[in-house]
Amino acid sequence: MSDSALDRLECGHCAAPAPTDQLIGTCRACGGPLLAVYDTARARADRIPDAGRGLWRWAGLLPVPEAGRFELGAGDTPLLPTGIGEWLNSGPTWIKDESANPTASFKARGMAVAIGRAKALGAGSLVVPSAGNAACAAAAYAARAGLPLTVFMPADVPRSFQVEARAHAARVELVDGLIDDCGQRAQAMADRDGSFNLATFREPGRVEGKKTMGFEIAEQMGWRLPEVIIYPTGGGTGIVALWKAFNELESLGLIGPERPRLVMVQSAGCAPLVRAFDVGADQADPWPAGATCADGLRVPRSFGDRLVLDAMRRSRGRALTVSDAEMLEYARLMASRLGLFPCPEGAACLAAQVRLVEEGWIGADERVVLFNTGSPLKYLHLWPNSTHPEHTADSDRRIFAHD
Amino acid sequence: MSDSALDRLECGHCAAPAPTDQLIGTCRACGGPLLAVYDTARARADRIPDAGRGLWRWAGLLPVPEAGRFELGAGDTPLLPTGIGEWLNSGPTWIKDESANPTASFKARGMAVAIGRAKALGAGSLVVPSAGNAACAAAAYAARAGLPLTVFMPADVPRSFQVEARAHAARVELVDGLIDDCGQRAQAMADRDGSFNLATFREPGRVEGKKTMGFEIAEQMGWRLPEVIIYPTGGGTGIVALWKAFNELESLGLIGPERPRLVMVQSAGCAPLVRAFDVGADQADPWPAGATCADGLRVPRSFGDRLVLDAMRRSRGRALTVSDAEMLEYARLMASRLGLFPCPEGAACLAAQVRLVEEGWIGADERVVLFNTGSPLKYLHLWPNSTHPEHTADSDRRIFAHD
Ligand SMILES: [Zn+2]
Ligand SMILES: [Zn+2]
Repeated sequence: MSDSALDRLECGHCAAPAPTDQLIGTCRACGGPLLAVYDTARARADRIPDAGRGLWRWAGLLPVPEAGRFELGAGDTPLLPTGIGEWLNSGPTWIKDESANPTASFKARGMAVAIGRAKALGAGSLVVPSAGNAACAAAAYAARAGLPLTVFMPADVPRSFQVEARAHAARVELVDGLIDDCGQRAQAMADRDGSFNLATFREPGRVEGKKTMGFEIAEQMGWRLPEVIIYPTGGGTGIVALWKAFNELESLGLIGPERPRLVMVQSAGCAPLVRAFDVGADQADPWPAGATCADGLRVPRSFGDRLVLDAMRRSRGRALTVSDAEMLEYARLMASRLGLFPCPEGAACLAAQVRLVEEGWIGADERVVLFNTGSPLKYLHLWPNSTHPEHTADSDRRIFAHD
Repeated sequence: MSDSALDRLECGHCAAPAPTDQLIGTCRACGGPLLAVYDTARARADRIPDAGRGLWRWAGLLPVPEAGRFELGAGDTPLLPTGIGEWLNSGPTWIKDESANPTASFKARGMAVAIGRAKALGAGSLVVPSAGNAACAAAAYAARAGLPLTVFMPADVPRSFQVEARAHAARVELVDGLIDDCGQRAQAMADRDGSFNLATFREPGRVEGKKTMGFEIAEQMGWRLPEVIIYPTGGGTGIVALWKAFNELESLGLIGPERPRLVMVQSAGCAPLVRAFDVGADQADPWPAGATCADGLRVPRSFGDRLVLDAMRRSRGRALTVSDAEMLEYARLMASRLGLFPCPEGAACLAAQVRLVEEGWIGADERVVLFNTGSPLKYLHLWPNSTHPEHTADSDRRIFAHD
């Protein structure tokens, strides 16, 4: 397996450097998020990606020494052709199905890297705030790494996430509040007892792990990126990570300067980044009392807002909100017509695509990739036990007009 | 993609041939299960496996015309190194993690092939009896194929399986009984309205789909099969399929005559095949009122019993039962120590391995593959919301003596 070609860490806000061999979370100069920078020449000399399968095939472009590369099966998720393009009278559409990851969500990628790096650099214990899937992924990798983990979750997070995290031996602390309140509790614990804080953008590993989604899309599409990627956005790590992935692939000569337009989808009940993008702000105000059935989108404040909004602008993207009702309607439609049962966050991407095709913003010959970020099985509480097969909602009629 | 090298169908009991281009379920001469036989020379000339990923890479050795090859992401599940061998003072141990399949279980493989074949050969509607995961997998592929599906399930099957099948637009009929009662209802429906019956061993596709698990293990281990495979067994399709896979790989010259010893694990509450194996019978009597929390093992009668028991004997294997309490204990242990949260059926494999290592039946240098057949997320009803991380059960002390 490749050595890591990690060259340095660099603050995403003030560009101050940080050492790579210490467990540092955020910039010591300004407190901003740290990003990993690689030695392109060294990475190019390595054969990237390695043969085999999974996220560690990209180890040359990940900040994890070999001792931290725990293998639970993350990465190399399928990019599935769908037929959606034909229905919408639009271009070919794929779904990147992240539910095939360990703990059944895309969060496994970020946690594999963040926890692998933390373990290799000597962390003794871990803490993370989570709205749902991140807790499960962190718990699984912490268990494998032999590190105790404390999770702070909103008290009203569905039971499925709590049970899974606890099965992996995480200590789950329920907080009367949202994930930003959990984030404060996690930081307080890190300050108090030295536990390493895995919160989004508070350490450089999670962005790096999610970057492999971008690498895989490029590889799976024969190094010819799609014109549009539609991505459900909580804190926005994925947006930053996809953009970083494409820049690194270009610096390696694997792709050219073309980039997809990124579509950021949030819930109508919690859309701080969409609101900021739409008014042209370069930072996002917190969204008070965010509420949505899509737990992964219940993120009222992003510590990486500046990086997210910057990547969105550079990509000439769009930001949209989708209601909970639309998410459930499109999830049912995808399950019953495509055989792909998404989480609500995944369904939100199709809702956004339909709107952007109708608007003409997505052209008829443009290739589109949607993300299903996780398994519907953690959201079964949203489903009645009586889904009626003959039921046809408005979305069916709209989408399947071309059947 | 390769053409199918399917040469003929042949009865597993009386060896009578059956045509390949018709939707035939069982042997017309004796009613036995039909098995697919391939033209080895033609298959050898094709490059098998194809490049790319997933189950259809093996299309040359599957009985599905190209029009039936629906892509939901089945196959190429990870074979994960575990560290279990070191703990047990035994040989290296991997887990084949089938929860990465669509609908989060190994059943996707069989249904991809069975439904793909049925669609390509003109089926108009489908029916299947299921104890759980098979219903979900069938529902997803039926939805993608555009075929109506009726599922007969025991009325007390957990809600998770019912909700998932219904989300994929299956018509779910709950039956006051076990899967054999459901099987009678399914056959009656097939007889009445011509729906194609997807029941285990009642059509040749499901064994063929599951065969790809054996192909992948061989490939992932560098064409050097493990000494022992431990497999949780309901109806036994997987046992027959693994054995058939290895024979076909040998006929292609990809492996030699060596075979793993197959360990068949059933629940102590429903173990018709284990009982038959242990008394040397070549058929299995039904197990009255089978009961277990592992829904996939709640199969009191197997239509393929003769084929299963024959493969088991040829492999010089072992048959064991595991209690529900052991399954849950080992599941907790795997989740908290390996970061791998299995379904109860998967946990049963580790319980069996521990016993066989203690007995000396598995040698200290033997390579072992365990199967996790599906996701724990459909079994969350079995888990208290209070799994205590410090809790140490007997199994921990026994297994981790070598820590
Ligand atoms: Zn800074
Ligand atoms: Zn026959």
